[in-house]
Amino acid sequence: MTHFIGRRAQEYLKQLAECTDSEIGVTRFPFTQEHKRANTLLTAWMEEAGLTVHMDDAGTLIGRYDAGKGTKTLLMGSHQDSVKQGGAYDGIMGIVLPIIALEALNRQGKKLPYSVEVLAFADEEGVRFPTALVGPRALAGTLDKSVINRPDKNGITLRSALASFGVQPENIDRLKRNPEDILGFIETHIEQGPVLEHEGLPLGVVSAICGIERHQLTFTGQAAHAGTVPMHLRKDALTAAAEVTLEAEKLAIKLPDLLANVGQLDVTPNVPNAVPGKVSMMIELRSPVDEVREKAGELLQAFAKETAQIRGLGCEVTRIYSQPATACDPALQLSIATAIGSLDKRVFTLPSGATHDASAMADLTRVAMLFVRCKQGISHNPAEYASDEDMGLAIEALMALLLDLQC
Amino acid sequence: MTHFIGRRAQEYLKQLAECTDSEIGVTRFPFTQEHKRANTLLTAWMEEAGLTVHMDDAGTLIGRYDAGKGTKTLLMGSHQDSVKQGGAYDGIMGIVLPIIALEALNRQGKKLPYSVEVLAFADEEGVRFPTALVGPRALAGTLDKSVINRPDKNGITLRSALASFGVQPENIDRLKRNPEDILGFIETHIEQGPVLEHEGLPLGVVSAICGIERHQLTFTGQAAHAGTVPMHLRKDALTAAAEVTLEAEKLAIKLPDLLANVGQLDVTPNVPNAVPGKVSMMIELRSPVDEVREKAGELLQAFAKETAQIRGLGCEVTRIYSQPATACDPALQLSIATAIGSLDKRVFTLPSGATHDASAMADLTRVAMLFVRCKQGISHNPAEYASDEDMGLAIEALMALLLDLQC
Repeated sequence: MTHFIGRRAQEYLKQLAECTDSEIGVTRFPFTQEHKRANTLLTAWMEEAGLTVHMDDAGTLIGRYDAGKGTKTLLMGSHQDSVKQGGAYDGIMGIVLPIIALEALNRQGKKLPYSVEVLAFADEEGVRFPTALVGPRALAGTLDKSVINRPDKNGITLRSALASFGVQPENIDRLKRNPEDILGFIETHIEQGPVLEHEGLPLGVVSAICGIERHQLTFTGQAAHAGTVPMHLRKDALTAAAEVTLEAEKLAIKLPDLLANVGQLDVTPNVPNAVPGKVSMMIELRSPVDEVREKAGELLQAFAKETAQIRGLGCEVTRIYSQPATACDPALQLSIATAIGSLDKRVFTLPSGATHDASAMADLTRVAMLFVRCKQGISHNPAEYASDEDMGLAIEALMALLLDLQC
Repeated sequence: MTHFIGRRAQEYLKQLAECTDSEIGVTRFPFTQEHKRANTLLTAWMEEAGLTVHMDDAGTLIGRYDAGKGTKTLLMGSHQDSVKQGGAYDGIMGIVLPIIALEALNRQGKKLPYSVEVLAFADEEGVRFPTALVGPRALAGTLDKSVINRPDKNGITLRSALASFGVQPENIDRLKRNPEDILGFIETHIEQGPVLEHEGLPLGVVSAICGIERHQLTFTGQAAHAGTVPMHLRKDALTAAAEVTLEAEKLAIKLPDLLANVGQLDVTPNVPNAVPGKVSMMIELRSPVDEVREKAGELLQAFAKETAQIRGLGCEVTRIYSQPATACDPALQLSIATAIGSLDKRVFTLPSGATHDASAMADLTRVAMLFVRCKQGISHNPAEYASDEDMGLAIEALMALLLDLQC
């Protein structure tokens, strides 16, 4: 059974992966022909599962299992779009698995005491338009409506892209849901990391979606001839940057709730025989605990300034971005944990380092996430892969959860 | 007197700086109209100084003070060419100062017991052609003649560039001098570093021209999502590179005869939210003592490999370039030191971290160098500057040296 429904998910995802604009991997940006073709497939499968389908004015395709008047609604789903030359699972697997779970329950003649909606959000990756998460923000009532006037690189605004999908973007602010009608939002997603594989587990319960902050750091020294300036007279911007890079790593190893990354570093003039006069670098910090992340940011800024002072360099450091963590709801976490336990699998809890639709949905309702193991932790890459067996287990966990959920 | 002859040098250099292909700084590549105009000026001043002028088949302009048949010849000079948007002193000052020194001796009616040639080499910087030091190598008999067939970026070969200057490049291998006829080569050059300024001294005696080696180093880890891979599962190429960068600095501070520089470092994919999967970097080592440089290279290669092993990274490290140090002749150093001392200046000895024409001339004869203080150690830059006073002192030192030299 597990393998059977898992293979079904795999087949669905294979068909969806053909809705792509690239030969390598999956490239499916929002409001394109590929998106339209994916929606046609999703609509058919939603209808087979007994769901009533419509598209809202933010371009979110919604399949509704209606339990009758006065019932509350559980929201599920994820995003349909991919990055450029991405994989076949990120996002869209979280739409396919609940559809199959609901279809299986439907076939088994199970009735739920609450309604369910499976949401296929148009745009989470934010690759086409200079905005993202418009679908969940519209539901949460946190959308800045002016973003619909933003153009893609071809000058097509989000407004006209939405209109080309037959919806009324001017009504987008009417999409706000009443939190009292909603039971919560449960998002299923590949882990995008290697932790479950490392633990030998197919599924994981997400404890929180990490907060993120970025610090733009520039050290200014003095470019100089690497042969003529003695070591003690140099003002080398790269050695200072190296110290900060290692300090960020050290701090993140010391603090279990912190991830730190220096992913971008640019040296000027960047030639072998010149002492580096300038280095620009970005430090990214993530943590499920905001206080830990913020404290780490302060410590690293202070370390950078002190390093610059000792080395006689200029130092500009600015926190250019900050997004708080999203805690997952304890009761929903417990429901997911119970469902995983019912499959005789060890319950394992981990934070999500990546942002998800659930981050924006948390402004509307309590959220939770089910992570599915992916091969080698690879994501945003054509090699992205989740097995039939693991997806089958995820569907069974969702079925157990749906049958067990208290409303 | 000092100031007067120094101002004269400054005026000459100002006129030569107008022989440029750029509005900013000096751009004078070999065998260009700018080179021709500079040679016209140099020829006139050489002749005023009583020198007989000709151009050899490597494009070196030579002004000869002839002391008569059977006398040995002291060679002096440097290169006329500049880097792109370089300064007015690097190289060409070492041609102008000996001309003025010889003219002053000539005016004073002094006769020398040996001949002197002031050499204006065409190309030391190697910016136009994929070769350099052709002039001194031809004199030393170390030139690979095939280099004259190499083209510049416009497809003009060195051969045809030489021919356009009216010389016979096919005869270039006849230029080899007999070492027994040569007394030595003395090159005057701006320091291109801040040491003399730091010491408060106008002039310095060069002990040796540093040997150089370069190591190309690539760390290969695994690019990964900076939010989803825990610290202990990362294979971060940049933190390894940071360790090596700091180790190179540490080693060079510990060993007084070593300079180390990581001047070039490139991160892949170089985005804030990806753990760096690959870093390519270049380590450059310089030392007047070859054993020190070579030992440091071995230590850093071993350190890089060990760092990679501890971090589970791939590591490729190759010494891609190596050039031994050139010792300056002790007797000629003493002559320069004596000349500086005769001006009531403290004698200060320092190595040259940069390569010079003297490096190639060392294959023909004993060499020595006189360094002149330059402002803030700046070189290869329009802001390059040596003062009237310092150049005047250098001319006086050269005059004292010429009068005192044993042959």
